[in-house]
Amino acid sequence: MKTVNYPNGAKTIQHKTISYSRRGMSLESDINATNKYYLENDIAAIYKKPTPVTIVNVDYKSRATAKITEAYFQVPSTTDYNGIYNGKYIDFEAKETHNRTAMPLSIIHPHQIEHLRRVIRYGGIGFLIVRFTQYDETYYVDAGKFIDYMNSLKAKSIKYEWFQKNGILIPYNYVIKVNYLKVIKDIYEGESNEHI
Amino acid sequence: MKTVNYPNGAKTIQHKTISYSRRGMSLESDINATNKYYLENDIAAIYKKPTPVTIVNVDYKSRATAKITEAYFQVPSTTDYNGIYNGKYIDFEAKETHNRTAMPLSIIHPHQIEHLRRVIRYGGIGFLIVRFTQYDETYYVDAGKFIDYMNSLKAKSIKYEWFQKNGILIPYNYVIKVNYLKVIKDIYEGESNEHI
Repeated sequence: MKTVNYPNGAKTIQHKTISYSRRGMSLESDINATNKYYLENDIAAIYKKPTPVTIVNVDYKSRATAKITEAYFQVPSTTDYNGIYNGKYIDFEAKETHNRTAMPLSIIHPHQIEHLRRVIRYGGIGFLIVRFTQYDETYYVDAGKFIDYMNSLKAKSIKYEWFQKNGILIPYNYVIKVNYLKVIKDIYEGESNEHI
Repeated sequence: MKTVNYPNGAKTIQHKTISYSRRGMSLESDINATNKYYLENDIAAIYKKPTPVTIVNVDYKSRATAKITEAYFQVPSTTDYNGIYNGKYIDFEAKETHNRTAMPLSIIHPHQIEHLRRVIRYGGIGFLIVRFTQYDETYYVDAGKFIDYMNSLKAKSIKYEWFQKNGILIPYNYVIKVNYLKVIKDIYEGESNEHI
């Protein structure tokens, strides 16, 4: 048996003071906390890729304190998250929107779509995690299903109702904020894992 | 049939002027060119992770030209390269040494070793690519074998002879500089792929 690691080192739950709402917490920080839980409980190794930057100038006063003084953001070539779970290659992009009615497609880069297509073609598990902050709902969306639907559309956004119908609501709890591996386990019928 | 993409867009080979030596080309640039070949020929999606930096200050004169004016290098948590090939999760670290007799272990971070251990435990393919620049030789080394041997050692380096005996020399050609997937295909007896 492994001990459960609460985020931020908290070991006891103060029922009076804890809010179970995710509002105000960014999707990225929730996913990072979830991935940390998976890592610490020896379930999966899934990481956010570093933000790609082009480094132009570095001030090397000392090796230990090299300071980058000029750099620029690059457009990412792939999705933000990938890794391994139970022998499977996992790859996804996470997006949140404050919009009540639809997710604008402009928030996903075309090469991220192209990358997810490849992932599926090569036998990996590719998906999107989409949060509608106004409803405090986070959906798991199969990348193949998403891309097919996107390509069939003339509109530049996908309606909230489509996610309700075609996505899978990702379970939330205080310890595992965005338990997307639970969804994957259910879909792909992997062996049971007591920790997720 | 797909056309073969020569690096740098060269479509013809000038036999008189081309050197087949890799000397002077860094291992990183050779691996990046190889991964680009795999990608363009629809073989695998394997990428180098961006260098992790902590961004402290950004000058937002305009959104398109945001300039990072203060940032610092982070110690990476994982290996540099990962991706998917033929349904398999691929993960490796690449190191080159100018040393003639041994590879110093100081060039690999302990958490990279820990990460490779996980990759193997979760059913992925974890390995190292080690180049001895003085011999112009690049070895594929199974991460499990490498870690076991490393842990059995008191020395702070692994002798060149160990790589000759326990590594697999990675084939080189002008088009595919570091054809490590050929080695993986041979080891894991995957289906044949005419492009590698």
